[in-house]
Amino acid sequence: MAEVEGRRRARGGGGAARRAERTAISVETAKYIERNIPVYNMLSEEALEIIEANAETVLAEIGVNVVDNPKALERWRDAGAEIDGERVRIPRGLARKLCATAPSRYTQHARNPERNIEIGGNTLVTAPVYGPPFVRDMEGGRRYATMDDFRKFVKLGYMSKWLHMSGGTVCEPTDVPVNKRHLDMLHAHMTLSDKPFMGSVTDPSRAQDSVDMCGILFGEQFVQDNTVMTSLINVNSPLTFDDVMMGALEVYAANNQACIISPFIVGGAMAPVSVIGTLTQVLAEVLAGVAYSQLIRPGAPVIFGAFVTSIDMNSGAPTFGTPEASHILYGAGQLARRLNLPYRSGGALCGSKLPDAQAAYESAHTLNAVLMGGVNFMLHSCGWLEGGLVAGFEKFVMDADQLGVLHNMARGVSHDENGQAMDAIREVGPGGHYLGCAHTQANFKDAFWRTELLDYKPFETWDEEGARDTMTLANLRMHRMLDTYQRPSLDQGITDALDDYIAKKKASMPDAFM
Amino acid sequence: MAEVEGRRRARGGGGAARRAERTAISVETAKYIERNIPVYNMLSEEALEIIEANAETVLAEIGVNVVDNPKALERWRDAGAEIDGERVRIPRGLARKLCATAPSRYTQHARNPERNIEIGGNTLVTAPVYGPPFVRDMEGGRRYATMDDFRKFVKLGYMSKWLHMSGGTVCEPTDVPVNKRHLDMLHAHMTLSDKPFMGSVTDPSRAQDSVDMCGILFGEQFVQDNTVMTSLINVNSPLTFDDVMMGALEVYAANNQACIISPFIVGGAMAPVSVIGTLTQVLAEVLAGVAYSQLIRPGAPVIFGAFVTSIDMNSGAPTFGTPEASHILYGAGQLARRLNLPYRSGGALCGSKLPDAQAAYESAHTLNAVLMGGVNFMLHSCGWLEGGLVAGFEKFVMDADQLGVLHNMARGVSHDENGQAMDAIREVGPGGHYLGCAHTQANFKDAFWRTELLDYKPFETWDEEGARDTMTLANLRMHRMLDTYQRPSLDQGITDALDDYIAKKKASMPDAFM
Repeated sequence: MAEVEGRRRARGGGGAARRAERTAISVETAKYIERNIPVYNMLSEEALEIIEANAETVLAEIGVNVVDNPKALERWRDAGAEIDGERVRIPRGLARKLCATAPSRYTQHARNPERNIEIGGNTLVTAPVYGPPFVRDMEGGRRYATMDDFRKFVKLGYMSKWLHMSGGTVCEPTDVPVNKRHLDMLHAHMTLSDKPFMGSVTDPSRAQDSVDMCGILFGEQFVQDNTVMTSLINVNSPLTFDDVMMGALEVYAANNQACIISPFIVGGAMAPVSVIGTLTQVLAEVLAGVAYSQLIRPGAPVIFGAFVTSIDMNSGAPTFGTPEASHILYGAGQLARRLNLPYRSGGALCGSKLPDAQAAYESAHTLNAVLMGGVNFMLHSCGWLEGGLVAGFEKFVMDADQLGVLHNMARGVSHDENGQAMDAIREVGPGGHYLGCAHTQANFKDAFWRTELLDYKPFETWDEEGARDTMTLANLRMHRMLDTYQRPSLDQGITDALDDYIAKKKASMPDAFM
Repeated sequence: MAEVEGRRRARGGGGAARRAERTAISVETAKYIERNIPVYNMLSEEALEIIEANAETVLAEIGVNVVDNPKALERWRDAGAEIDGERVRIPRGLARKLCATAPSRYTQHARNPERNIEIGGNTLVTAPVYGPPFVRDMEGGRRYATMDDFRKFVKLGYMSKWLHMSGGTVCEPTDVPVNKRHLDMLHAHMTLSDKPFMGSVTDPSRAQDSVDMCGILFGEQFVQDNTVMTSLINVNSPLTFDDVMMGALEVYAANNQACIISPFIVGGAMAPVSVIGTLTQVLAEVLAGVAYSQLIRPGAPVIFGAFVTSIDMNSGAPTFGTPEASHILYGAGQLARRLNLPYRSGGALCGSKLPDAQAAYESAHTLNAVLMGGVNFMLHSCGWLEGGLVAGFEKFVMDADQLGVLHNMARGVSHDENGQAMDAIREVGPGGHYLGCAHTQANFKDAFWRTELLDYKPFETWDEEGARDTMTLANLRMHRMLDTYQRPSLDQGITDALDDYIAKKKASMPDAFM
């Protein structure tokens, strides 16, 4: 009982909040995007072949470092690589051959089957911001993130129509010990939302906790037979695989759970300043990482990841939404498709401190590249501020609304008889207007995307209502969403079992804050 | 002398301002964009063929209205069209055949030959906002535009590195009589900037004034031999050509000056609510307009224009940066290329009242579509606010900075030996970093696009400096630009002759404000 009380306190809600969350009403979530428009291929066949040949040279002649992981070195040796200390040199063609067993597309299950997602091929799935230690909103400014903030983001994500996933570390709950916070984060995703989510990667034991908790939520056999998590394995670029991330990958791959193998690169620091050079390194790292996942379990689902920003060479600050980052996003997508792997990139990235015009310009550049460049899994689709240091509440709501633009862009254009609208052109004729014609009446409801946030009002109305900017409108919408949030229903037995698991785990180890 | 004094007063500067403007120092302007990346073709061959067939049906069976212009009807009859009152029905294939004499690419000369632009093929030229009756800045809020505002925009445009043109009606100087303001606007473009500009289209006589003033600036023979203006001829959609715009087109085409034939469409009101239906009407209108330009003078340069927004079906408000507007932008580009004509669209369009996140999201969506969709002439590249009702000073500076993103995107990617950077990858190896390596040192200066406006500073620095948002930074930059503006030199004889022309013209007619 003390433990249950403890959990309730940790969640921070009073009695009224709990009552408000009690009723379970489902909210609308759009189906994952299926592109009915072509993908944009920026690089030539010649450039792609050069990158692929050079990546093989990197793997064979330079190799990658596999750190503090003797078993991984052994696996690589058995597979045919040349081991020299922690350096692993992979003969030409071997990594690519090993990658061939990875599926080109997979289903990730949600506890609500309507929210299942397909990852790969022509799909695009949206997931929120991942990783910031700070949060920002209009009332509180910039501050360290807490578990209460985390739960708010999960609720907002659940309420966001164009967001397909609940995500992973939507912010770092810095008020919970480092070695226990993954339990609370998973608990929030599992109980406050019914959208698919990501597992913990900060230690192999935490990856195992993620698998075990999914066993409670989905059933153990279901988890062994199906993918219920996609988790983020960053490569320590350049060309280094550490034991923590690789250990988590080993747990997930062994359990048939999906991982994103994602070089994390600030261009000019962790990779060459040139686009083709960076893509070469990205490809080499992904080939090595994906190949390793298939050494653990052939057929384990895995995503070709690329998180690449550019750098401001004057200050050393990472920069976002830049043309060079877009070049790399487009190029990496082409390389992923040639490997028959799903492709992950960043989303609404920006360097801005505030959810202002800079944030929106930068975010929109990447959102457009994501859609056109064939991304299948967009992490950081909403909420990212200040180079990923901050998860912004207003930014979350603003970006989440913009994801609707991508959905409608991807629908493409119908050229059937109704789409051709020749009857309307005949009916209206020169000098007429279309507002009242039959074709308009029949089609206007679905004809145009409509924001649920941005302002389309006449100037006078807008001015009378306080001349509010987008940040202010987003703040209002954020509060409205949280006020009307209702927790999706979950079997009481599962809830209790999750609580028990977490209580026992927490009791089994001392708090750690490093 | 009285005339000269009058001119000086009209320009609004005191003695100090005139002294500050006296020295002529050239500012850097980027060369027009040449795309080294592929164009994005969204529509299928089948969809394009349907649109083209349907557009011919529209012209042949429905026809277009040619209003208050008996001579135009005569020209059409002579060319083989069927005339019924003001209705002109154009037999299948005739308009397309007439369009064939229009050039696929032309040079527009600036008085400074370094600023000449190429329009067509793989180029993209940027021109500022056109037409708003209001202006907005942080100090004065939203107010009617004046000639003083107009001159400030021309100066800002001259100082903007990524802006290739000085534009046309960057705002409507409402303090100058309607029948005289074109003279002051042209005077500003000709004397305060040396970038290429647009002529007046609000009356055939004003188009003639534009040609005559260009005769003074460039020399009469030069104007007859070369294109020195590109002017904006809007079609009264649906399918109507009025005498004012057609009269201006006649003047320009006869003088070998370029025109944009531009359907101006709020989708759902002036065209069907479907993308393919709208594209059909756009193509029919452009075919008729371009064909008519070639009836005036075969070979006259002309641009395939399309200004198409969507509509908020709840409020009737026009909306910008929407997916449907992007669909149309991409599709119209494909149609223009199949006609071998240069292509014009809008640019940093938005519905937002303020230069905030909404403005930037919406603007960035269109800017990206412009680059990828093969636009050759981007009107409204910077400064547009509130559906085109307002020219924003801060928005102008913000968008103008973003145009640099497009320049670097369009550069594409080099895969030569330096671009491959294999030496750098070898030098740095696993776990190293690239900041100090030889390849980075040799390439970092040009490797990444860098803003001159947005904030990349660490949070603490930014916070100490006042936690300024993008609008505030743009306001500061705008004042810095205007404070350091220096007028480009111009032969005194030309200046005097322009002044004389304007003085005589103004004296020859009473003021008109309608």
